[in-house]
Amino acid sequence: MSLLVIGSVAFDAIDTPFGSTGKIVGGAASYIALATTLLNDKIGLVAVVGEDFDGNFIETLKSRGVDMAGLQIKKGEKSFFWHGKYHVDMNSRDTLVTELNVLGTFDPIIPESWKEPDYVMLGNLSPQVQLTTLNRLRKKPKLVVMDTMNFWMDIGLQDLKEVLKKVDVLTINDEEARQLSGEYSLVKAARSILTMGPQTLIIKKGEHGALMFAEKEQTFFCPALPLEEVFDPTGAGDTFAGGFIGYLASKGRTDFECMKTAIVYGSALASFCVEQFGTTKLASITLDDLNIRLAQFRELMFLPE
Amino acid sequence: MSLLVIGSVAFDAIDTPFGSTGKIVGGAASYIALATTLLNDKIGLVAVVGEDFDGNFIETLKSRGVDMAGLQIKKGEKSFFWHGKYHVDMNSRDTLVTELNVLGTFDPIIPESWKEPDYVMLGNLSPQVQLTTLNRLRKKPKLVVMDTMNFWMDIGLQDLKEVLKKVDVLTINDEEARQLSGEYSLVKAARSILTMGPQTLIIKKGEHGALMFAEKEQTFFCPALPLEEVFDPTGAGDTFAGGFIGYLASKGRTDFECMKTAIVYGSALASFCVEQFGTTKLASITLDDLNIRLAQFRELMFLPE
Repeated sequence: MSLLVIGSVAFDAIDTPFGSTGKIVGGAASYIALATTLLNDKIGLVAVVGEDFDGNFIETLKSRGVDMAGLQIKKGEKSFFWHGKYHVDMNSRDTLVTELNVLGTFDPIIPESWKEPDYVMLGNLSPQVQLTTLNRLRKKPKLVVMDTMNFWMDIGLQDLKEVLKKVDVLTINDEEARQLSGEYSLVKAARSILTMGPQTLIIKKGEHGALMFAEKEQTFFCPALPLEEVFDPTGAGDTFAGGFIGYLASKGRTDFECMKTAIVYGSALASFCVEQFGTTKLASITLDDLNIRLAQFRELMFLPE
Repeated sequence: MSLLVIGSVAFDAIDTPFGSTGKIVGGAASYIALATTLLNDKIGLVAVVGEDFDGNFIETLKSRGVDMAGLQIKKGEKSFFWHGKYHVDMNSRDTLVTELNVLGTFDPIIPESWKEPDYVMLGNLSPQVQLTTLNRLRKKPKLVVMDTMNFWMDIGLQDLKEVLKKVDVLTINDEEARQLSGEYSLVKAARSILTMGPQTLIIKKGEHGALMFAEKEQTFFCPALPLEEVFDPTGAGDTFAGGFIGYLASKGRTDFECMKTAIVYGSALASFCVEQFGTTKLASITLDDLNIRLAQFRELMFLPE
């Protein structure tokens, strides 16, 4: 089924205890789109970059079947840039530089052929842009998954709550779930957030896995694959979300049972993402690689064949 | 099959954000023994208490079928006492008082009828006492599970390493695994610890679940049940270990596949333990209660019927 992805396509610079990158390709939608290409062949991207952006990466997405008609390339402008530094334990990070550039005035233009997508992934972006995207669709999609972050809870909570009313699945991390709900207990936080719009909440806990809550007190947990080293966590949450919605779109399903397997696909793809800087590893894996990793999850968690 | 439990039987006083207890029954072996009684009928306890200990709790264990022949009651002496205070997030605690009392000179006397147990659970105790216990058995048990803590790594590492050579399964938490191995990555820590003696390592991560590693790079993860509130985490790790070995002993098995289910039983029992102060909840549940909770795990993690 058709899957529309919107989010940032950008440059990152990343410092970790293992080393530093120069400017490399990053952005939520870059990771999401890459993650979905292994499972889907009808993917459309809506994003904005500057004239400085990496043409090779655009070609990579095209060659993997992503329809780039919704990518705006702004002449004479610069792409969004984020520079972050991870702490020694890789579980926390500081933002050193944020340059909004083209993202500051992003007006999401949906190509005519993408106005009736079956599945929509709203990658982390300003809630206003996420809302505008949904409002520009001609009909309600089968499933809308939204990712966001604490930054928007700090500066745009009312807008964020407006979007939430229109999404089916929200993915945030544990601290964000606590901030959004005002509840420390994740069970209570989930119950509160499920009254805000989404029927399903996925709480991403990084190396501690992901917890999915749905109406009727349904709960599912997927572990993260235990890895020898986490090299660069950047984009892991985006990759996870991309794998999740990508699996659902490939099956044409939106039920909780299918979401259980989808969350495992998301986790498996995220486990690749963190093994190298940026999008490098994710762009290099094949369906065979993914299947090998899924077999490891099958060992780790009783995943049925 | 027969299951010998050794560990502390003691008094605790616990301060949490929800309130404080006076002196209540605690101790690793108290939790372990209670956890095993739902699944086993041949349980022997080896422990020491003072004359001040709670006779009702001894009767409770007896009435649930625990053979108390190995319990020494020291006239004119006092039971081990620990007083701890949990921080607001319940994930860390300070020790306010530790009175060794009878535990300072504990000489584990194994009753004749318990010198050939099939399964042995070495609850957290000085490594010397754990080693003496094993040395006093007449034959090698089918399975020895050992729990310990960072305190013994600080003051008795050489003794601890001697016991490790003789145990099959070690249960410790993530920080302890890092301390024992000198490795930050839990995958590397596990690989290192599996060369020290145990063929299986279980890393307890509290609310983040438990990771089991075995030789040949086998890995299994069991989540903790998401709870609305954690009321008192004291004894959760002991209960977990008791449920784990109790399930294996009830099946007469020691293979990795069976350990996967055993770890779920341990987690299910631990989820009761934290719901009330001390041993209260654990002492009140029935097999029906346990089965209801196992059904929740079945939903949470694809656990087969």
